Amino acid sequence: MDGKKVVVVGAGPVGSLAALYAASRGADVEVYELRNDLRNAETTPLNFTKSINLALSERGINALRSTSNDKLLETVLEHTIPMHGRMIHTRSATGALTEQSQLYDVHGRFQRSVDRGVLNGVLLDHLDSLSNVKIFFQHKLTGADFRKKKAWFEVTDKTNNIDADRPKEIEVDFDLLIGADGAHSATRYHMMKYARMDYHQEYIDCLWCEFTMPPNMSGDFAISPHHLHIWPAGSFMFIALPNLDKSFVCTLFGPVDMFVKLENAPDAELVAFFDQHFPGVTDHISPDDLIAQFKRNPHLPLINIKCSPHHFGDSVVIVGDAANAMVPFYGQGMNAGMESVRVLFSKLDEFPNAAEALTKYTEERSKDAHVIADLALGNYIEMRSSVTSRLYKLRKYIEERLDKYFPSLGWATQYSRVSFSNMRYSEVLKRSQRQKRILTGLLLAVAAAALSGSLAAIWLYVVRFSRRRRAMLYLVIQQVKW
Amino acid sequence: MDGKKVVVVGAGPVGSLAALYAASRGADVEVYELRNDLRNAETTPLNFTKSINLALSERGINALRSTSNDKLLETVLEHTIPMHGRMIHTRSATGALTEQSQLYDVHGRFQRSVDRGVLNGVLLDHLDSLSNVKIFFQHKLTGADFRKKKAWFEVTDKTNNIDADRPKEIEVDFDLLIGADGAHSATRYHMMKYARMDYHQEYIDCLWCEFTMPPNMSGDFAISPHHLHIWPAGSFMFIALPNLDKSFVCTLFGPVDMFVKLENAPDAELVAFFDQHFPGVTDHISPDDLIAQFKRNPHLPLINIKCSPHHFGDSVVIVGDAANAMVPFYGQGMNAGMESVRVLFSKLDEFPNAAEALTKYTEERSKDAHVIADLALGNYIEMRSSVTSRLYKLRKYIEERLDKYFPSLGWATQYSRVSFSNMRYSEVLKRSQRQKRILTGLLLAVAAAALSGSLAAIWLYVVRFSRRRRAMLYLVIQQVKW
Repeated sequence: MDGKKVVVVGAGPVGSLAALYAASRGADVEVYELRNDLRNAETTPLNFTKSINLALSERGINALRSTSNDKLLETVLEHTIPMHGRMIHTRSATGALTEQSQLYDVHGRFQRSVDRGVLNGVLLDHLDSLSNVKIFFQHKLTGADFRKKKAWFEVTDKTNNIDADRPKEIEVDFDLLIGADGAHSATRYHMMKYARMDYHQEYIDCLWCEFTMPPNMSGDFAISPHHLHIWPAGSFMFIALPNLDKSFVCTLFGPVDMFVKLENAPDAELVAFFDQHFPGVTDHISPDDLIAQFKRNPHLPLINIKCSPHHFGDSVVIVGDAANAMVPFYGQGMNAGMESVRVLFSKLDEFPNAAEALTKYTEERSKDAHVIADLALGNYIEMRSSVTSRLYKLRKYIEERLDKYFPSLGWATQYSRVSFSNMRYSEVLKRSQRQKRILTGLLLAVAAAALSGSLAAIWLYVVRFSRRRRAMLYLVIQQVKW
Repeated sequence: MDGKKVVVVGAGPVGSLAALYAASRGADVEVYELRNDLRNAETTPLNFTKSINLALSERGINALRSTSNDKLLETVLEHTIPMHGRMIHTRSATGALTEQSQLYDVHGRFQRSVDRGVLNGVLLDHLDSLSNVKIFFQHKLTGADFRKKKAWFEVTDKTNNIDADRPKEIEVDFDLLIGADGAHSATRYHMMKYARMDYHQEYIDCLWCEFTMPPNMSGDFAISPHHLHIWPAGSFMFIALPNLDKSFVCTLFGPVDMFVKLENAPDAELVAFFDQHFPGVTDHISPDDLIAQFKRNPHLPLINIKCSPHHFGDSVVIVGDAANAMVPFYGQGMNAGMESVRVLFSKLDEFPNAAEALTKYTEERSKDAHVIADLALGNYIEMRSSVTSRLYKLRKYIEERLDKYFPSLGWATQYSRVSFSNMRYSEVLKRSQRQKRILTGLLLAVAAAALSGSLAAIWLYVVRFSRRRRAMLYLVIQQVKW
């Protein structure tokens, strides 16, 4: 991409990574971000990014690894906390608090908890060090002509604007524009005027609210730092991810109705609700703090987006939430977005004709994007309820033993393939479905074997035993007759 | 709405009508239109509105009627041409051209062909005459805050702009904003940042290209002016609607593949294609003209949009294509849009609380909008192929006879309810489904009666006749024995 002008819209983790990929290929890169620089504490409101803690897993790490910048990857990983499994918090029949650890992986692979802002900052710092990257904050995409390859941005940054009364608009040319501007992407909106895009967005019946669980009295983590904590409660749940400062970022997920009820209930009911369904939480977040946080922090919706194509011609492509926003229940949103960047540039490397590269990218990636969006929706049910079911645990146990003791079978759980491999999501789904068919077949065979064994036993009993019995009965009857 | 400020985005037929409704209720109305004034021939390119001729039917007329402005309705109707039915053009087995007229309605009700620009112009002229309406052309919606009830428009009209180098942006306050800005609605885009909107858009595998069929040598209509002409051809079709200037606006509809093939074929093949599938057309559009028009006129896609809600709070509502773009095969796009305006204001009249009125509007209208979008898709199949099938004609015949001779049954075809009544689309669908069940039941009963008649006959034959036969056979056998 030597000398090509690449414009990236959005300086979040996915946009920053895309800029880095483009820069490492010799492009002249310009990044335009709607918001302030999140590294500037003065100008950035506390709740600047709503989703603060994320699970960084293999796909995200691999996308960083593929930049061949070991120092960068190392710096990112230094800022993460390993989470080796889920900690399921429930109350036993006797009312006692129980914690059950479910390891993520039979081979010891793990998730990493990372602060979105920290990860973003590391990437932005790195971009700052590159001479062929320029970052512009407070620039809002207001329009684009994807045939003429021109985009317009409104400069909301007042510092260099002489005539502050009137918004300043600038025109930017580009060879390729990469839209990484989130679920409400302006790039996508303008692209839809050019590309014949099938587009579906749905809000699921679930809101979320964030809480902070502070360190305990001795300044340490209040609960195990090496787990993603889940309080499953059927149709809703509470989760907690560790922070480097020894606090936890927690999230309450639940149906809209539940939120409305809690919002309108007296304060004490919120605490009672937590004590009933999320045992132990109020030992670590004081009731007053809990109430205050529930009132202060926004109650936000979750959106599911699927679309295709992800590009138009050779001039624009959308990545991350802009193309593939999903619910957070597989911890894959950011990982999928970063993987999309890796896949995108692998296509651009492979096909010198950009239009062809983008077409191949859409063909491959839109399929995978649809699969992970569906899997994430499905995992909501797993997290909030299935994790406690016996059948779920049995299947996990069988699949993990097969994986561990018969590695040549290539058996693995869907979770481990999604989280700890770089296999295409669509291939993961295919293999999971095949494994499910085989497991079901095995179970049926076992059941059939057990059943035929039983039938054989019954047959033996009826035919053989009863022959003797019938003989005896015959004798008895004869005796009576006599 | 006395003294309320209503901003309408989009000055097409639906937006203009909405402005008229708001104005007649005493609101201060401002209409902002992205494009030039279409009444100004100098500034308006020929192909300004892509969809030039439309079928105006009862719902559109009723929406005009409900303004209680008889003069306006009269003026509009003066500019329409009645179409009493479809004229189906086919070639007989012997190769002769055949024309078959299928009347739309057993009661003589009809569709009206209208030029979109003319209808729009009549409405705009009327708005110009109202003191409480201001229309601003070349104003592009660039943003909106639907909590603070503010919208921003970029003024692309250079005439009054001193500093022509920099786009001028204006801020507009409002009490209610009505977005009637088409399938690619900017209002909807900005509203989606506030409302949790489920949104689906799909491009169907069909492109369209417009043709003009000039008047014949004697300056008259080349084919019957009182029909909507259809050349059905299975997976594609050609249609023609009459214009007041005695020309016809024609449209070729077909799958993308077909268009690609025609675009890449030699010119002669296009003519041969027309002669094969659309018999008689090249008698009225010369082959050279046909080729030129196919090359000159754009080949455009068709989009299907469903969304809900159609509003946010008490501040914004979307109508027409912005909320409910559909494929054109039921001739209902504009009619549905105009009906939406009527329904919207009936809710605003009924509920003094605007938020409640808009909520009721979404509840009722989004359901109907989804139904007509589905019906329009279904009618594509009817128009391009079913119209020639015997079963289709039989059902139409039976339903029309029931409607005509047994009016008390309340029987009617789905087409006549959609086109000639103001029944809610969802109710139309319900009744059609019920009629279908009854008809199927009747057919089954007739079949059952025929079958039981046959069975009775067989029974008689087997049991009674064979008794005699058996007796005879018995006698014969006895004789042989003897």
